[in-house]
Formats: sequence, structure tokens, C-alpha cells
Amino acid sequence: MTAPAAIALDIRLRLLAERGDDAAALVVPDVVLGSPREAADLAAFAAGCDVVTFDHELVDAAALAALEAAGRTIRPGAATVAVAQDKALQRARFAAAGLPIPPFRLLEAPAAAGLVAFGEAHGWPVVAKASRGGYDGRGVWILDGPAAAGDLVAGLTGAGEASPLLAEAWVPLTRELAVLVARRPGGETAVYPVVETVQRDGICRELRVPAPLPPALAATAADLGRRAAAAVGVVGILALELFLVGEGDGGRLVVNEIAARPHNSGHWTIEGAATSQFEQHLRAVLDWPLGSTDLRAPAVATINLLGPADGSDPRSRLRAALAVSGAHLHLYGKAARPGRKLGHATALGATAEEARGRAIAAAAALVGNGAGEGTA
Amino acid sequence: MTAPAAIALDIRLRLLAERGDDAAALVVPDVVLGSPREAADLAAFAAGCDVVTFDHELVDAAALAALEAAGRTIRPGAATVAVAQDKALQRARFAAAGLPIPPFRLLEAPAAAGLVAFGEAHGWPVVAKASRGGYDGRGVWILDGPAAAGDLVAGLTGAGEASPLLAEAWVPLTRELAVLVARRPGGETAVYPVVETVQRDGICRELRVPAPLPPALAATAADLGRRAAAAVGVVGILALELFLVGEGDGGRLVVNEIAARPHNSGHWTIEGAATSQFEQHLRAVLDWPLGSTDLRAPAVATINLLGPADGSDPRSRLRAALAVSGAHLHLYGKAARPGRKLGHATALGATAEEARGRAIAAAAALVGNGAGEGTA
Repeated sequence: MTAPAAIALDIRLRLLAERGDDAAALVVPDVVLGSPREAADLAAFAAGCDVVTFDHELVDAAALAALEAAGRTIRPGAATVAVAQDKALQRARFAAAGLPIPPFRLLEAPAAAGLVAFGEAHGWPVVAKASRGGYDGRGVWILDGPAAAGDLVAGLTGAGEASPLLAEAWVPLTRELAVLVARRPGGETAVYPVVETVQRDGICRELRVPAPLPPALAATAADLGRRAAAAVGVVGILALELFLVGEGDGGRLVVNEIAARPHNSGHWTIEGAATSQFEQHLRAVLDWPLGSTDLRAPAVATINLLGPADGSDPRSRLRAALAVSGAHLHLYGKAARPGRKLGHATALGATAEEARGRAIAAAAALVGNGAGEGTA
Repeated sequence: MTAPAAIALDIRLRLLAERGDDAAALVVPDVVLGSPREAADLAAFAAGCDVVTFDHELVDAAALAALEAAGRTIRPGAATVAVAQDKALQRARFAAAGLPIPPFRLLEAPAAAGLVAFGEAHGWPVVAKASRGGYDGRGVWILDGPAAAGDLVAGLTGAGEASPLLAEAWVPLTRELAVLVARRPGGETAVYPVVETVQRDGICRELRVPAPLPPALAATAADLGRRAAAAVGVVGILALELFLVGEGDGGRLVVNEIAARPHNSGHWTIEGAATSQFEQHLRAVLDWPLGSTDLRAPAVATINLLGPADGSDPRSRLRAALAVSGAHLHLYGKAARPGRKLGHATALGATAEEARGRAIAAAAALVGNGAGEGTA
């Protein structure tokens, strides 16, 4: 989705792809085959680029640091990428910056005793998280007591998993939110309206923009976004995921985690904001003036399309979805698998209900039924 | 500009390009080198495509007809392309369909006597047009009397130019307008709001959407668009250029000419309409449901960027233009030459003045001064 933004501004993209049939390689002409986890591949790739940036975080941060030391321009920088890859580093950084986070403790290796001690100190349930590598709900476990803690550690140890574990107090959240911030090298930021992200099974299903929040809370969320962006020194787009506890004017916000790249919670911006997150990311990493983050309609809704349980390909139902007037469809060019994010549908409306109704109708047509996977 | 629309819907484009550094070849990975004026190149290219379509008209229509006879799917079809390439064929077709056109006569070869006879019958000035190959004001001459007619024919004959010439009555136009119509193979159409096109020296400089017309005239323009699309049997986007004579409720419309492809007069749709003309063209030629043509704001303005007279490249001033909030920039990846269309700037607004002000500010920044080439 970065490619269309680059085309409009005549920015020449060079893509580092692991395979020639990666989805991005199907739409970018200038492809270098290699792995973002191999220092040599990264070095050879970076040598031909004015600026290196990312649309995922599975990159070797140490190799990026070496490239920076050699004078390459990496945005976001290696230090930011390292923090974004590690939930324990995020907690430490945000604690130091005074951002509201839940009580946490880092266990250097999975240990039932450490989880139990944390639960006894902060109450159950305890949320255990792999500090690195989690995605779409994987690597996060909610433990309701000592027995569950023992089972988790036994399972991880049995699988040979010795990575650090983060123990956190469970947050009694009422909604999940996200704030998208773009930041230039000099520190200038632009913040998008706060989004409500509707999750199921740890996977984001739906975006509602603007999030239904009192103005003071929305302003606080934007402020947290700016502070988080500064705390990790991001250049480019940062998505800050937040928990809302309580509702209305009595609500409070708790920082969950970040992504330092264009993010699923910002896909609504392609049609819904004056500047898409992809164009904004390019502007930021090129140190160009940031664009307006204004909404283009009173309400925007985005529904993620997950691969249907029957394994069928939503593309086979594209005609029916295109017949839904006012819905904007995006298909990612990936092979269909049940539960895989294959695309999204966005709609604008005069009201949240109108926008959501259109987006859901289009998504339901693509996944084959109104109550299937990928619709709310 | 078709590539971003194709990316969103996971449509795999294959491009026939004359050179590997053509602007389109820089953004489409699957490029076949060849000439659209060579039957063999077209045939080899078409063999690998489900549907063949066009973003320009410099194609060998006879070769397309042969491909259709061989079973290839060409949209728009060879017969439509042939009419779009020839102003004399357009006049004949629209006369037969009862569309409002000026008096005209086809001169099979340039002949001063024929032009003079036409001027004596219909009055001076007479508009002489090369029936084929005109573009951006080239191939159109306004003759104020017999002497000018003699000079034109002498010049054409001296240059070895023996192509047919169309003589037309001069239309005392007050505005130029364009109607964009998308048409599917079965005849279903979608019509965009009528646009005012502001021309200077035969080159479109500016689009104003919606055109300032009484509702009845706007409805008539839309109806002419549908009738013209049906008359030439287009599949895909058709741009119908119209002259407005008079103003207000006393105004009347005269058909000028067509383009059977996404057209400069529709570039505003990328941000200004619910469905861009490029996505709409793809939908139409794939026989998919057409999208909404609704405006996304009360007013939309687009300014074409012409290469500055000093030969400088507008890209060198991109940062300044990006600082204009709410303007959407498009650069075409072409080498800068004075007067060449290098891109455009679009802005939305609550009023025509607001939209136009933003678009002009961005365009002026790109071309280097507020009163330069390419701005109004």
C-alpha cells in the first residue's frame, strides 16, 4: 500500500523481498531479493538507497545499527526498531517517560515462580507476553492463577522456548484504541484522530473513526501518541495501541504497545484522511513537510478481511462486493488461508452507523456470508 | 495513474511500453517492450492478457480489429478506438445520433477553395481541424477569412500534409465543459458530475468541479455523455468535451470531441470522487459493477502542472508544495520540458474558491512562482 503513495509523488521505491512472488514484489518494479534478517543482504540493499525504511518489523536491528554507523540513512533508526521489536524494552522506555502503563515485571526466562509471585503482588489474572515475536494475539497469554502459570511455563520449556517473558497486571479495558503519529527527524509530528480498534481473538477486526471518546480523553490520547513517538525517537509512522479503562469522562488510558511503521490501525486513512498513512510515512522518512491528518467525512469504518474458514478466496466474490456503493476495497495479493488478513474494506459516512454498514456489507460479500470470519 | 487503482483491487497489469524508461514502465513490474502501432507487437502482447485496454489513443485500430476477429478481448473495441482517433468520424457518428454539433464539412485533402466555400456558407471565422493526430491545441486553426485559409493550406501542402481536414463553424463559447462517463459491455453507465475545463492556448490548465451550471443544463450534459458513450459503443471511460454557448438558463451545449480512455479532465476524481476514473475504467473493461461517482466534497479543483519556461523541474520544489495543507500532488515521472504536462494538483473545499485557492497555491509552489506557466 506504500506503492500507490510513492507513484503519486514520483518517489522511486526499491524493495527488499525474500521472494519474487511476495505481495509487494508483484507491484514494485525494482526488487532486490534478500532477507531483512541477513546483515549482508541489508548492507547490499542499503547501498543503493537514499533512505531505508520498513513496512514490517522482522528486520535485524543490530545490522541496522551497523549500517547507521557506516553512514546509511535508516528511518526509523536502529534504536527505534529495537524497541519496537521488544515489549520489555517498550515498557522500560515508557515507564521512564512517565506514560501510563500497567505494573509489569520482566522474567529473563519463563519461570512459574516469577509469574505466581507477580500474581500474588498484583492480583490475578496475570498477562504473560513473549517479549519478542508476538503477532495478532500470538505470544500473549492470560493466566487466571498459579495452575495456568505452571502450565504455560511447562509448555514453553517443553517447546525449548527460553526467551524473556513479560508479566503484566491485567487491565480491565472497556475499549481498545490506537493513535497514529507521524514524526520527522527534527521532531515535528502530525497526529491522526484517535481510532477504536475492535479485536477478536487478539486480531483487529474493525476500525471506528473517530473513536467514541469525550474530547478531553481524545486530546489525552493524542498527547500520549506524541510523547510515545518522542520517547522512542521514531521517524516515520508510529502506531500507539491504548486501552481505555472505564467510560466517558471518568475513563483513563493505559499504554499497550507500539508499531514503528504504517500499521493496520491506520488503513482507514487511505480514503478517510486528507493524507494517507503511507504518504505520510514517506513524507516523514524523507524529511518532507507532513500532510493534513483531517478526516474526509464525519465517520470512517474499516473492516479487515480474514480468510474464510472454508479456505475460499475472497477475490472470487469481488464483483458482489464492488456492487456495494461507497465501499473501498483493498486486496493484498496474498494466497487465501483461513484467518489470514487478506485485505480490508473502508467506507465513509455521515454517521458511524452509515460508514460501518457500508464497510460491513462489502466485507460480508467478500467473505461469502454476513456472519462469517472477517466481519463483525 | 491506473497502477494504484489496480494495486488496490489486486488486478495484475501487464504494460506494453515502447521504452523501459517510459513513465508507466517505472511503476508497473510486468512490462513488455513493443509498439502499439505495430500489429505484431500488439498481437504478441494481447496473447498474454485477459483484457486489453488503453491509456492513450496512439494505437493501430486496424490491428485491434484483427485481434478482435481472432477472439481477443479489446476494450474499448477497435471500432470505438477508430472513431476516437478521427474527428471526422466523430462528427458523422454524433450527427447520426442527433447530438448537438456545429455545422461541419469534411475536406478529403486540404483545399483553400473548400474552406472559403464553407466560410461563405456558414460565416467566418471557420475552425479547421486535422481529422487525426491533433493534441493539446495542435492541429486546430481558427481562420478569420479567405486569406488565412489560403495560408493554412499553403503551409500544410508545403509540409507534405495531405490528410483530411474538417471545416467547422466557429462556436461562440462561454465555457468549456467535460462529462466523464463509464460504460460496461452491456451498456450500463455511470456519469460523473460535469466539469468546467479552463483552457489556455488549447491546453487544459484547470478543472472546476462541479461546473457552475443551472441544474437543467448539468442534466442535459450528463444525458449527452450517455448518448455519446452509446453512439460510439465505448467500454471503459469516455470523456465528452462540450462547449457552453450563452450562460445561465439560456445556455446551450455543443459537442466538441471525445477521448475513449481515462482523461485529463477526470484527474480530479482520484481524490474528489468516491471512485476514481482509473478504478472505474478498470471496473468497466473487466465488466465489474461500476462505483459511485459522488463528489467527496462540495467543490474540487485541479490545476495542471506545465513545465516552467525556464526548463526547471517542478520536482526540485516538491517540499514547498507539500507544505500547502490539503493539496494532493501528482507527478508523472516525466522529464521536465517547458509547457509539458508534468503533473497536477487537486484540492477539495467547502467552496469553489477554497478548493481552487489550495490547488493553485500548491501548483504555484511547484512551478516556482505564482504567475508562471501551469497556474491560472
